[in-house]
Amino acid sequence: MTGVNRRFVLAARPVGMPKESDFRLETAPIPTPKDGEILIRAHYVSVDPLQRPRMNASAGIGRTVNLGDVMMGRLVGEIVQSRNANYREGEFVEGMLGWQEYALSDGDTNRDLYAPGVTKVDPTIAPISTSLGILGFPGVTAYFAMLEIGQPKPGETVVVSTAAGTVGSIAGQIAKIYGCRVVGITGTDAKVDYITEELGFDAGINYATTPDLEAAVRAACPKGVDVYFDNTGGPIRDAVLPSLAKGARIPLVGRIADMHDATIKLVPDPQIHLTRARARMEGFIVYDYVDRADEARHAIAGWMRDGRMRYRETIVHGFENTPATFIAMLNGANIGKALVSVI
Amino acid sequence: MTGVNRRFVLAARPVGMPKESDFRLETAPIPTPKDGEILIRAHYVSVDPLQRPRMNASAGIGRTVNLGDVMMGRLVGEIVQSRNANYREGEFVEGMLGWQEYALSDGDTNRDLYAPGVTKVDPTIAPISTSLGILGFPGVTAYFAMLEIGQPKPGETVVVSTAAGTVGSIAGQIAKIYGCRVVGITGTDAKVDYITEELGFDAGINYATTPDLEAAVRAACPKGVDVYFDNTGGPIRDAVLPSLAKGARIPLVGRIADMHDATIKLVPDPQIHLTRARARMEGFIVYDYVDRADEARHAIAGWMRDGRMRYRETIVHGFENTPATFIAMLNGANIGKALVSVI
Repeated sequence: MTGVNRRFVLAARPVGMPKESDFRLETAPIPTPKDGEILIRAHYVSVDPLQRPRMNASAGIGRTVNLGDVMMGRLVGEIVQSRNANYREGEFVEGMLGWQEYALSDGDTNRDLYAPGVTKVDPTIAPISTSLGILGFPGVTAYFAMLEIGQPKPGETVVVSTAAGTVGSIAGQIAKIYGCRVVGITGTDAKVDYITEELGFDAGINYATTPDLEAAVRAACPKGVDVYFDNTGGPIRDAVLPSLAKGARIPLVGRIADMHDATIKLVPDPQIHLTRARARMEGFIVYDYVDRADEARHAIAGWMRDGRMRYRETIVHGFENTPATFIAMLNGANIGKALVSVI
Repeated sequence: MTGVNRRFVLAARPVGMPKESDFRLETAPIPTPKDGEILIRAHYVSVDPLQRPRMNASAGIGRTVNLGDVMMGRLVGEIVQSRNANYREGEFVEGMLGWQEYALSDGDTNRDLYAPGVTKVDPTIAPISTSLGILGFPGVTAYFAMLEIGQPKPGETVVVSTAAGTVGSIAGQIAKIYGCRVVGITGTDAKVDYITEELGFDAGINYATTPDLEAAVRAACPKGVDVYFDNTGGPIRDAVLPSLAKGARIPLVGRIADMHDATIKLVPDPQIHLTRARARMEGFIVYDYVDRADEARHAIAGWMRDGRMRYRETIVHGFENTPATFIAMLNGANIGKALVSVI
């Protein structure tokens, strides 16, 4: 196939919030698949919080992006050439294939943290964009982190941070389906309205305008917090810990508060709160659950069909807008899953 | 019964390490039991790390000792007068009865965190001093924190802090019995010798003389740390976290590094380590397990009979030496359980 492939490479390691100049748009010929390879044309490119630490000199977890390399990121697209018997042209696949319009893959389906492969996407089940969100890694993350570590029980109180984001909005709705009182923490009044009015959360807290977040959490959770679905780390976690109920569970899912550099921040020691509440704080990485991803996808798709799981996408058109969309997402501009449509 | 009861009251709230002048020796008539009460004459008074935070204006967990009140502390002694049909003179009981030579009790056996009662002690099974140590709350603590939260499996690597102390020495030996490689962290070379030569730990690290504790833990645990039995919090925990193996468990048992005041210290955020290792950090309070205490006592007593569980006491004679013994224990002077013999 002749033509031009556009791609964003990492031009500079950001300090704090990334700038558009940290990325550089490059062009190259559309690559040609070798024997065993497939060529994918992107339809949607994903922007996700966990791409941010990969831009640091040390990612902490997972591979770091080298300067000059194509920026790591997920995409979903159509196979336009196949030299691999397991894939046919016209099929769709999703994978960590980078911010580019065309990508090669050897078709490996291993989705390890360090060598993530591709997964076929059936466009007749749901729009293919959902493979990057509610039916993709974010949905699988929300499902297993909430159910395996959070273990919500009917009548319990669940607090979710980044509640209007992709993972948080799914996690909170799962807790509602499991019979919990759900309180979302988010950053704008519009997002509070979204989670309470559209998603059915019982309460929402705008951390950006609440003068005393710890008091606000305590007031919103009179029986204490049984599950804190921690998507942020940082001051939001610190504000929730004093309200933990006895036996609370804290899945550590994201750390959007602490991803802008590779240094480890000082935080108030969580020990006294964990001890007082006999609470459990546990790290979660979705790659541990890739073998069970279909279990999550089937459950979530069922809830979507039943109208018990709602979903919103913020789609920006134009590949060239990918860095700006990523930065806006990190700044909390979007509701639901942020995506770039490429064609 | 006529005579004098000596007791230590809290004279001042210590700043940092307590001083002897923070306690005041007072005398009073030996009290007379009312109907339903028993009078106990102390044989041994206990000094334990968790008494230290009770001396702060806010204990954090459990009741605080008011200025002028008898210092909280456990003792074991003989019933010298009984006006309670459930207790006979000559029987022995153990309980949180304060630093005093004679104590009254209503015989309540409820051992709640806030209203701890008494437990009968059978002197024919083991020396009554063990009811304050290996067969008392420290043993029950080590047993359930290690087995319920730590969940050690054969071949795993277990690190124990305050390894030569009461709880740590028991916890480490339990892990050995469960087939683990056990590394103890302690504060003198003599204690390293004690845990490796007498208790059978596989390795010991003297944190006080090791220039780089994090590197020493990594070197001692080439396969990573599967269980970190955390008796200290503070810099020792910070040094262990980078070596966590995948799926590690961290029972938060003690916080000797952080008990000298009621403020919560800043620590390096444990999130990245917990996430990288998918590790679990969980608070533990022994009072949750009082209903199962006999299970721990029977297991530990069996191991003692089999020669698989060793135990040492540091006994100081003379009630008047109680504060000094407490302070020495906090400074790490003792090996094994520190006690004061009163008669």
